[in-house]
Amino acid sequence: MKVRVVLVEPEGMINFGFIVRLSKNFEIDEIAVVNPKFDPFDEEVKRFAAQGVNYLSKVKIYNTVEEALEGFKVCTSAKVSHDDPLRQHVLPWELKDYIGDAQIVSLVFGRESVGLRRDELEKCDILMHIPASSSYPVLNLSHAVAITLYEFWKQFKLERGTLPS
Amino acid sequence: MKVRVVLVEPEGMINFGFIVRLSKNFEIDEIAVVNPKFDPFDEEVKRFAAQGVNYLSKVKIYNTVEEALEGFKVCTSAKVSHDDPLRQHVLPWELKDYIGDAQIVSLVFGRESVGLRRDELEKCDILMHIPASSSYPVLNLSHAVAITLYEFWKQFKLERGTLPS
Ligand SMILES: Nc1ncnc2c1ncn2[C@@H]1O[C@H](CSCC[C@H](N)C(=O)O)[C@@H](O)[C@H]1O
Ligand SMILES: Nc1ncnc2c1ncn2[C@@H]1O[C@H](CSCC[C@H](N)C(=O)O)[C@@H](O)[C@H]1O
Ligand SMILES: Nc1ncnc2c1ncn2[C@@H]1O[C@H](CSCC[C@H](N)C(=O)O)[C@@H](O)[C@H]1O
Repeated sequence: MKVRVVLVEPEGMINFGFIVRLSKNFEIDEIAVVNPKFDPFDEEVKRFAAQGVNYLSKVKIYNTVEEALEGFKVCTSAKVSHDDPLRQHVLPWELKDYIGDAQIVSLVFGRESVGLRRDELEKCDILMHIPASSSYPVLNLSHAVAITLYEFWKQFKLERGTLPS
Repeated sequence: MKVRVVLVEPEGMINFGFIVRLSKNFEIDEIAVVNPKFDPFDEEVKRFAAQGVNYLSKVKIYNTVEEALEGFKVCTSAKVSHDDPLRQHVLPWELKDYIGDAQIVSLVFGRESVGLRRDELEKCDILMHIPASSSYPVLNLSHAVAITLYEFWKQFKLERGTLPS
């Protein structure tokens, strides 16, 4: 299974550096970045990537979300709804049940400021929400990535042994 | 159950601001900080705490690790060993089995540079390790906190409904 992290218009170098580090911590195959608002190879990014800096070689830049999506698509959202069909969500520990034995999985994260747009959510196969306090369920981007990659590692690498392919 | 995050000599304001935010995301009761290497109430911290900034009111500063520890103590470590009895570890999803119905739990995290010292590990009831790539299992501090608080929320709030007390 090939696992891709897809970042849609990320805004911050610190978050991005941390995500590169996390991608090495959890052996991600590709870091797809759609229209970043900074230079993904800046020294500041490298500083926060720490010993994950060699994973900058896994970064691929895309101009549009369409081009960046591939395989089974998991969108993520800080907000969920019980009425809106586009906001019906699965929980992190249920991922395995939905993804089955897809050969390519794209884990899609939104902008720090406004998340993913409706037309972007529509392109995904499922929407995943990390449950947290109802008074403040909005995680910082790289921390949402950390929890998602951890669950993925647990479910696919440790429990099923299908990572890496 | 009262849940405390204990940070031993943290070095970075960005990580600390993110941990304050995470403490609100996952409704932590106290943020115990032992001998921080910066001003925990600096503007930089507040910037990264985002809408979690009001959780700075949960911060308590301690001079020594001894004073900061309370209740059932979970130490965390990026490194584990199969020989060293102090490095025998439990996995994040096993926490519930060890913690039982302790009234106070302290989740203890080490320095960005060198983690927790041997004499500090000795003071804990269990050692928890987040499994990750053997080529780079060392997570950034605030990302290790994120995954730990997420597992705690899942096991104690969602599955057992004992949080907050
Ligand atoms: N609780 C949560 N569950 C899943 N993803 C989350 C999350 N909190 C943050 N994220 C991820 O982090 C990204 C940036 S947070 C975006 C917040 C924005 N105010 C909004 O309206 O959505 C989100 O797009 C999502 O990918
Ligand atoms: N220097 C300091 N020492 C001890 N506690 C402090 C402190 N600065 C702030 N606090 C504590 O942190 C709480 C929140 S301070 C953060 C909110 C603040 N109104 C702001 O400017 O954004 C305060 O009520 C106080 O309890
Ligand atoms: N895989 C992992 N599991 C559990 N905690 C981790 C972790 N990776 C990092 N941490 C936490 O993050 C802190 C800073 S990382 C410290 C790394 C240091 N080089 C060392 O020798 O340990 C650690 O003390 C621990 O609290």
